[in-house]
Amino acid sequence: MADIPQDAPEQCPGTGSGEAGKASACQGCPNQTLCSTKPQGPDPDIANIKERLTSVKHKILVLSGKGGVGKSTFTAHLAHGLAADESKQVGVLDVDICGPSIPRILGLEGEQVHQSASGWSPVYVTDNLAVMSVGFLLSGPDDAVIWRGPKKNGMIKQFLRDVDWGDIDYLVIDTPPGTSDEHISTTQYLSQTHVDGAVLLTTPQEVAIQDVRKEINFCRKVNLPIIGVVENMSGFVCPHCTKESVIFPPTTGGGEKMAADANITFLGKLPLDPRIGKCCDEGKSFFDEVKDSPATQAFKDIIEKIKDYCSKRKENTEVDTGEQK
Amino acid sequence: MADIPQDAPEQCPGTGSGEAGKASACQGCPNQTLCSTKPQGPDPDIANIKERLTSVKHKILVLSGKGGVGKSTFTAHLAHGLAADESKQVGVLDVDICGPSIPRILGLEGEQVHQSASGWSPVYVTDNLAVMSVGFLLSGPDDAVIWRGPKKNGMIKQFLRDVDWGDIDYLVIDTPPGTSDEHISTTQYLSQTHVDGAVLLTTPQEVAIQDVRKEINFCRKVNLPIIGVVENMSGFVCPHCTKESVIFPPTTGGGEKMAADANITFLGKLPLDPRIGKCCDEGKSFFDEVKDSPATQAFKDIIEKIKDYCSKRKENTEVDTGEQK
Repeated sequence: MADIPQDAPEQCPGTGSGEAGKASACQGCPNQTLCSTKPQGPDPDIANIKERLTSVKHKILVLSGKGGVGKSTFTAHLAHGLAADESKQVGVLDVDICGPSIPRILGLEGEQVHQSASGWSPVYVTDNLAVMSVGFLLSGPDDAVIWRGPKKNGMIKQFLRDVDWGDIDYLVIDTPPGTSDEHISTTQYLSQTHVDGAVLLTTPQEVAIQDVRKEINFCRKVNLPIIGVVENMSGFVCPHCTKESVIFPPTTGGGEKMAADANITFLGKLPLDPRIGKCCDEGKSFFDEVKDSPATQAFKDIIEKIKDYCSKRKENTEVDTGEQK
Repeated sequence: MADIPQDAPEQCPGTGSGEAGKASACQGCPNQTLCSTKPQGPDPDIANIKERLTSVKHKILVLSGKGGVGKSTFTAHLAHGLAADESKQVGVLDVDICGPSIPRILGLEGEQVHQSASGWSPVYVTDNLAVMSVGFLLSGPDDAVIWRGPKKNGMIKQFLRDVDWGDIDYLVIDTPPGTSDEHISTTQYLSQTHVDGAVLLTTPQEVAIQDVRKEINFCRKVNLPIIGVVENMSGFVCPHCTKESVIFPPTTGGGEKMAADANITFLGKLPLDPRIGKCCDEGKSFFDEVKDSPATQAFKDIIEKIKDYCSKRKENTEVDTGEQK
């Protein structure tokens, strides 16, 4: 998981390693001088992030292997659902640096971040729902963030270290698809804090399921607990004849079978409803807008399971494999 | 577009710049010694890539801002469509390093790459359809490639420099979503070759359209010509009542309006057909399997437009803004 420069030799111990610049593989590496002279030891910001996030009770990552399976829609509505309990404070952090959809889906397009003495102030949807996204730092919604990994990692570190969430109950972190910089950095930066776990999203077809299996392997490699799997876009109810159709056929058994095979909790299925997409484009919560959708009740059941998981996890710190002490 | 290390000062000229280590901003930067002592000038591999790809007539990039809009399905079927003309040789390069779907969609799962004296041999679907993907280098389809940017870039460079395509007419390059390492590196490495242009994929809803606008800005910044926009998953024909429904409502006018606004060619709409997803999971071409699907004819029309564009572009090199001489 260490930083390996592009021009490093095969056996590079990583620039963050104590061996950096000293290992036998470092002989002749163009970075050797740099590595052997830079300050050693763990990144001091990891301790700063730990300090900053002590005021956050539960941290949930939303992951998927494949793009377009509904991570941001899920994240936004998980946050809406958690914040429905007005006694709870909820935060959403969008670490999808190159494709931030959260501002639009939460109806916050055009909002800006403010700086205060205690850090960056998030943008509020309601009194108890705060949001941070790179989208708030752009001059327009069409601006492209053409950044390589290190700049994306720097932004994620700033988000984790500098955003002043205050005392909050849940922080839901939305990620881009894949298993690269954003995922490695986020889990690394959070390595000294208590992370409840990850919710993995998929759609039913094998091409998506296969990418979730990669994501499960990622979670296991970085010791990130898995809360469970959600299968999104499981079926489509035709508004004309009200019969349900399959859009992405689960040729290999879909999310439920995959979860059983991998010995992971299956949290539930969410059917497709075109009214959900419309709510997302308009920045509204479909819990309020389309109360009669089969997706609404299914989603609420999933949120209850996640709340249950978090409350149990807080009590039982022994299973806390995500936390590196 | 230059490489900026994470710990560099604001005004870093980039490690690839002639100013690296010498600019006033470099004073006090921890990388200054490294930058000022490393060999200057352009990456010699860019010339090697140019040399390697002289045997490739047309190069087409498939891009999208958002994930899950169907890039890999589109890429695979564009390749199938181009290879339907047996006199043409077609190649597919999958630069989605962390989520390679191409091997599955083209029915090549479990295949391995072979090394020969002239480079890496691609894997063949048919005599005139060759494929390269990081998926062929993994020990299993569930293996996660947990790589940061520099390692991904190194792999893309190897693909472009070392794969022995032979004389081919079309090389279709499938990318991951976003505007980050894979996109910057691919366009940079191809900067001395003739790239015909990019096909941008979207789905109708604003959340996806917004990400395509970012991708258009990316193409303009890196001088990559845009062949046109394809709107995927435009509607769904209910197999029960045969009436068409909208799955992702085009609340802001969809791909067609966006293309008109941005003064870009609109190549067409592809309706959703669950049989397409099934073909992808099974590694089959839906041109052969579901000849009666409305998507099949719409797709063939789009392929004709892309062929037309490529043939005209080859003749008229004056508009070749993608090529840096």
